[in-house]
Amino acid sequence: MKFTLSQIAQLLDAKIEGNDRVEIHAIQSLDQASSTSISFLANPKYEASLYHTQAAAVIVSKDFKPKKQLSCTLVRVPDPYLAFTTLLEAYQRMKSLQKTGLESPNHLGAGATHGKGLYLGAFAYVGDQVKIGENVKIYPHAYIGDGVTIGDHTIIYPGVKIYSNCKIGSYCTIQAGAIIGSHGFGFAPQADGSYKNIPQVGHVILEDHVDIGANTTVDCGTLDATIIHRGVKIDNLVQVAHNVEIGENTVIAAQTGISGSAKIGKQVVMGGQVGVQGHIKIADQTTIGAKSGVTKTVRKGGQTISGKFAYNNPDYLKSYALFRKLPALMQRIELLEQKILNLPAGKETHED
Amino acid sequence: MKFTLSQIAQLLDAKIEGNDRVEIHAIQSLDQASSTSISFLANPKYEASLYHTQAAAVIVSKDFKPKKQLSCTLVRVPDPYLAFTTLLEAYQRMKSLQKTGLESPNHLGAGATHGKGLYLGAFAYVGDQVKIGENVKIYPHAYIGDGVTIGDHTIIYPGVKIYSNCKIGSYCTIQAGAIIGSHGFGFAPQADGSYKNIPQVGHVILEDHVDIGANTTVDCGTLDATIIHRGVKIDNLVQVAHNVEIGENTVIAAQTGISGSAKIGKQVVMGGQVGVQGHIKIADQTTIGAKSGVTKTVRKGGQTISGKFAYNNPDYLKSYALFRKLPALMQRIELLEQKILNLPAGKETHED
Amino acid sequence: MKFTLSQIAQLLDAKIEGNDRVEIHAIQSLDQASSTSISFLANPKYEASLYHTQAAAVIVSKDFKPKKQLSCTLVRVPDPYLAFTTLLEAYQRMKSLQKTGLESPNHLGAGATHGKGLYLGAFAYVGDQVKIGENVKIYPHAYIGDGVTIGDHTIIYPGVKIYSNCKIGSYCTIQAGAIIGSHGFGFAPQADGSYKNIPQVGHVILEDHVDIGANTTVDCGTLDATIIHRGVKIDNLVQVAHNVEIGENTVIAAQTGISGSAKIGKQVVMGGQVGVQGHIKIADQTTIGAKSGVTKTVRKGGQTISGKFAYNNPDYLKSYALFRKLPALMQRIELLEQKILNLPAGKETHED
Repeated sequence: MKFTLSQIAQLLDAKIEGNDRVEIHAIQSLDQASSTSISFLANPKYEASLYHTQAAAVIVSKDFKPKKQLSCTLVRVPDPYLAFTTLLEAYQRMKSLQKTGLESPNHLGAGATHGKGLYLGAFAYVGDQVKIGENVKIYPHAYIGDGVTIGDHTIIYPGVKIYSNCKIGSYCTIQAGAIIGSHGFGFAPQADGSYKNIPQVGHVILEDHVDIGANTTVDCGTLDATIIHRGVKIDNLVQVAHNVEIGENTVIAAQTGISGSAKIGKQVVMGGQVGVQGHIKIADQTTIGAKSGVTKTVRKGGQTISGKFAYNNPDYLKSYALFRKLPALMQRIELLEQKILNLPAGKETHED
Repeated sequence: MKFTLSQIAQLLDAKIEGNDRVEIHAIQSLDQASSTSISFLANPKYEASLYHTQAAAVIVSKDFKPKKQLSCTLVRVPDPYLAFTTLLEAYQRMKSLQKTGLESPNHLGAGATHGKGLYLGAFAYVGDQVKIGENVKIYPHAYIGDGVTIGDHTIIYPGVKIYSNCKIGSYCTIQAGAIIGSHGFGFAPQADGSYKNIPQVGHVILEDHVDIGANTTVDCGTLDATIIHRGVKIDNLVQVAHNVEIGENTVIAAQTGISGSAKIGKQVVMGGQVGVQGHIKIADQTTIGAKSGVTKTVRKGGQTISGKFAYNNPDYLKSYALFRKLPALMQRIELLEQKILNLPAGKETHED
Repeated sequence: MKFTLSQIAQLLDAKIEGNDRVEIHAIQSLDQASSTSISFLANPKYEASLYHTQAAAVIVSKDFKPKKQLSCTLVRVPDPYLAFTTLLEAYQRMKSLQKTGLESPNHLGAGATHGKGLYLGAFAYVGDQVKIGENVKIYPHAYIGDGVTIGDHTIIYPGVKIYSNCKIGSYCTIQAGAIIGSHGFGFAPQADGSYKNIPQVGHVILEDHVDIGANTTVDCGTLDATIIHRGVKIDNLVQVAHNVEIGENTVIAAQTGISGSAKIGKQVVMGGQVGVQGHIKIADQTTIGAKSGVTKTVRKGGQTISGKFAYNNPDYLKSYALFRKLPALMQRIELLEQKILNLPAGKETHED
């Protein structure tokens, strides 16, 4: 994909200082940029990098005054960081729009329908009665089970598997290898020590603007739905068990696991490798430290909690600091014992 | 898939009270049910939900007496929960049987054979000399390597990858994205600081009635087999390393990792995010708390163990409770020190 | 795949004692071997297994003197373990070379090129402008995005997904289901509590001799590259976030997670289920205990660190030992308190 600097200037409402006919192929940082890249300088801390960058062009503040000779073209804007993210978004939108049409072979099931702008990669499988909205991008090796619905502008990356009857909202992004609707872990113990599977016949609902990371797994509900509400962002390799509900705009970092039927509030922030026990509730705006285990319902919203049986974070940190000092503490106790034992014997005879 | 209420009544040996000609399309909970769903009331605690459910029909006890007017049809049985799980199983069996035949394109290698009732989804790959039993369901994008055998009634969900020569039993279920037989982590350190791969030429044996979760990975043995015995249930995103052996009817929750050559006993229960060190043994019927690390062989069966270097759970919980109290403990030690230091100096002169 | 014993003898420069016309189909351990297997005896500890092995042939030391009658053929070499790994490597090389040619259907994009010896499995997808070196093996259901480059002798197992523009070196091995170049977790919080995605337009560089485990995920850089240097070995289900850099010959065990922009040194060894915080640096030759959390930059190389906020391992182990003794410690403190409180009151009046 290529932009000319004058196209970029138009998009960003920028003033070009230097050669505006250069072609831009990539957006990179000052240090990594090549002669066909554009970069940006927002934080004055990185100004030194500007003087040795290979970038063809650099977005800078409209008032920026270089201290040395520059080889790159300057793209002057009121807010360099904002302009830069605008450019990134335009780049990604263009990249996404480039992919359209149906590659062969693909499988489009009986009664499956789709809106305009569909990209269906080769070897993608769309089951029967699937309903696909407008401008949806389904990459190769994706599997969309029977009866699934997918909203507008959603992107399904390669190898995503969506079990039958799941409902995927609009503007969702599902990274490669994620599994939506797998059959969760439900077993009834039998008298002989074996387990009998409890069939899982529910589905998964992803509301709009939900992002799911690579190789993350979201189990279907046992009877009803596992629900991930609007705006939730889930990182890679996360496990969401059956019947879980996750509130709006909650963010979950990589390798966290949420056990069955847990209800997570809105705007919760979970660090990586957190574990949440089954059937508990977590209040809105709770922040959970990385590697914590949440084993009890958190009723009061807005707290930061940590630890293997997670609780109030400042208290946890105090305890952990003392955990590190346990050997010194032990010595202090031993010294006290020595002193007490060395008290004249008479002091202790009436003790008990 | 549709049932009529009279078909359901026959299956469950139930007595219908109300309209028995209604068509049922789904099985749902009382609260989530729609006008084409059947639901159930087993626990009297949920009776309130019965009076505002949208369900077309509800399975209830034969003696149940409604306290209010009901709009749904009642399906009266001796044991509502048992009837309900019977219905779920029938539903799942029907759903599974619906999938038959070979979709195109698929790849069926030289010398591959299969029994009746096979479903082979589009884009599924079956290697050379693969032997597939009866009523096996292989979903799209599954990869079955050369020389693999698969027993009767086993279901392989979309995107499962099985490396060559693995042996999969009967009545197994492998959820989407699981990897069976990947080459484990074996490296010989070299003098220059680099590592040389140790080829892994073994395979994996899953015995009958084994369930493997979504995106779980099971490495092949280095020379021989990684063995998962009959009835084992493994959740999503679990790692089973090379040469591991897992005993009958053991259950392993999500995101647990078992290192190379560990031997896990029968009817062991592991919580989520557990780590088991390599080359150790875990006795039968051990229960391991979520997030624990098992670093030593557990010889005595039937214990519950926890902690980062897992040991007896009640002791672990006592220590953890005191960990939380460390700041208070510290204050008590400081107070003791103050008191001791304030003892008349003479008391201490003969101390050491 | 079959070898005759005389072929093996030639490869290993060995002396055959017994029938050299037997055909070998597998390499197995003494205990598991069948009548068409070859095995080895390197450690005298396992000599007992030799006398009841089913193996057709066993590699032994040139000076080995059996204590009992043997039914197997002996393959005498100067160093049995070295000979055995040589045989394993030859076996794996042959197995790998067997796979060549392009199976149908496959997708080979516009402008994609490749060297000799390519294996492209059925349903593999190679995007536009992809450059593939010599003797590369790409298994079924692999996805290679537009503009990717792959060096010589690299093996891409089934279902691997590589996003566009990533650079994969020579002699790399990527196990099934691994995701290279997924879009990392970058979100800008908005005033209304929602998050706006920060487009991730970078890529991933795997240098030569890098191994990636099954279902592991490596996110692309935000603007530039996530870099995994030469000789790095990564196990299954590991998460490598955007902008991470991992130094040469570092080894990372299963289910470890490395957060965004962390820089890991050379020859670092990480146990399983470790978590590394974002933006920190870890010095060369650091060893990190399983399940540890690394939350601060580690400046001094060559240390072993452990714990949830990982630090010096011997100190951590001392603290953990005392954690287990906290109930006893508590009793000692209570006893001290009793003794102090029982001191004659006069002793304490002048205390504060």
